[in-house]
Amino acid sequence: MTVLASADQLVAARTARSRYRSGSAEPTSGVAAGLTQANLIAVPADWAFETLLYTQRNPKPCPVLEVIEAGAVESALAPGSDIRTDIGRYRIWRDGELTEEVPDATAAWDEHPDLVAFLIGCSFTFETGLAQAGIPIRHQEIGRNVPMYRTNIDCTPAGRLRGEMVVSMRPIPAGRVADAVQISGRTPAVHGAPVHIGDPASLGIADLGRPDFGDAPDVRDGEIPVFWACGVTPQAAIMASRPPFAVTHAPGYMFITDVPDAEYIV
Amino acid sequence: MTVLASADQLVAARTARSRYRSGSAEPTSGVAAGLTQANLIAVPADWAFETLLYTQRNPKPCPVLEVIEAGAVESALAPGSDIRTDIGRYRIWRDGELTEEVPDATAAWDEHPDLVAFLIGCSFTFETGLAQAGIPIRHQEIGRNVPMYRTNIDCTPAGRLRGEMVVSMRPIPAGRVADAVQISGRTPAVHGAPVHIGDPASLGIADLGRPDFGDAPDVRDGEIPVFWACGVTPQAAIMASRPPFAVTHAPGYMFITDVPDAEYIV
Repeated sequence: MTVLASADQLVAARTARSRYRSGSAEPTSGVAAGLTQANLIAVPADWAFETLLYTQRNPKPCPVLEVIEAGAVESALAPGSDIRTDIGRYRIWRDGELTEEVPDATAAWDEHPDLVAFLIGCSFTFETGLAQAGIPIRHQEIGRNVPMYRTNIDCTPAGRLRGEMVVSMRPIPAGRVADAVQISGRTPAVHGAPVHIGDPASLGIADLGRPDFGDAPDVRDGEIPVFWACGVTPQAAIMASRPPFAVTHAPGYMFITDVPDAEYIV
Repeated sequence: MTVLASADQLVAARTARSRYRSGSAEPTSGVAAGLTQANLIAVPADWAFETLLYTQRNPKPCPVLEVIEAGAVESALAPGSDIRTDIGRYRIWRDGELTEEVPDATAAWDEHPDLVAFLIGCSFTFETGLAQAGIPIRHQEIGRNVPMYRTNIDCTPAGRLRGEMVVSMRPIPAGRVADAVQISGRTPAVHGAPVHIGDPASLGIADLGRPDFGDAPDVRDGEIPVFWACGVTPQAAIMASRPPFAVTHAPGYMFITDVPDAEYIV
């Protein structure tokens, strides 16, 4: 489906990218509302096939929106963008260890000019649909980053890459859980329907109040924790598989594209 | 979604694969009804990343269901299968030229043990849904192979790979065209909604009666030609891009899996 962004949306997206390019940072949930945001993972060229294969085998957590080949830095989803600078916070990984968090990844690309960048769909895309249906997006309401958790679900390996699935969690009023499933299920290209509803323990999550990434949740009476596959999953694969070098966004600090969320609705 | 095949379906699929393994061949439209069929393209390992990238950039014609890595020959979608033998007719391509059509591709794998095989979704998957809705599948009714056409739509290139989109065509009664769009649109992982409805000329198709692959159509009064992106598109990429070696299925002679079509419904 081809859906056009409004002029206002494009201004909001370009303004946000320009802000991040100048060094500022903010969790991007709710920023440039209605436009798709993306997770980033960039790896040296000799890891690119395995990374793409890992995403193909694990499409719920790793839906690829675009691959920016070695030598290129502009995203086709955001003309004029520069993937090295237009995210608020980057993470630099060496041998599977997070070694730096920086506002600009130009030095990383200078160090590894053969980096291949993967933009991966983000659950923020279907938050637009949830909000339009009057379903509360708690972490936005209280100005926090969405809570994310490592789970006991193993992804399907690809070559040297393996790791567990990471999920994001939103507390949903019990009477709206089915709506949340159906609305997010209409965007299979960006995580789609939840992978799990209501029982953190069976995902191996010991304490819902202490997420592995993002901020603590605020689950209220009558609300059910609903878990979606999360684009931070490649970062778990980096930790488990220890490629020599990688660059990612920092969880919650996404790449903002010019593409409307509605583009991904089936 | 996880959907289980019935025992009868599994017997039908295994019997068909076993028949093809023994050397027989038939167009597979309607065979092992309700189970997903797949297109094949296998390329040497040094073309694998570009091929996977080409499919990622052209998901409507090239939806990847599975990648069988170099050294492996069993499909996870059909336990016990052998991708070298379980298709009725294979095509062998050298430098972009079709040089042989054979009932067994074991010699090709012996010649190139590093072949990486891609199984790509097939429009036969949504034919099940069309038939259940009472929409006639003409080529099945008259015992022919579905007609397929090269078009003037360029796919997005990836590295050395480029080529035009190939489409399959089904004549649909004008009053059922919208139903056909909605039913096929529910399976975005297997070509999804049509790419074009009603005007062959604007796709660059000069004569609907002379398809580039498959058999001539039978379009009757009150029927509209409806075009879906087709998994033969990688064969057009082979012709245009001339990799040194490739193996594909012959159009219409698909790989039959054990996975229900319903698995791919959103």
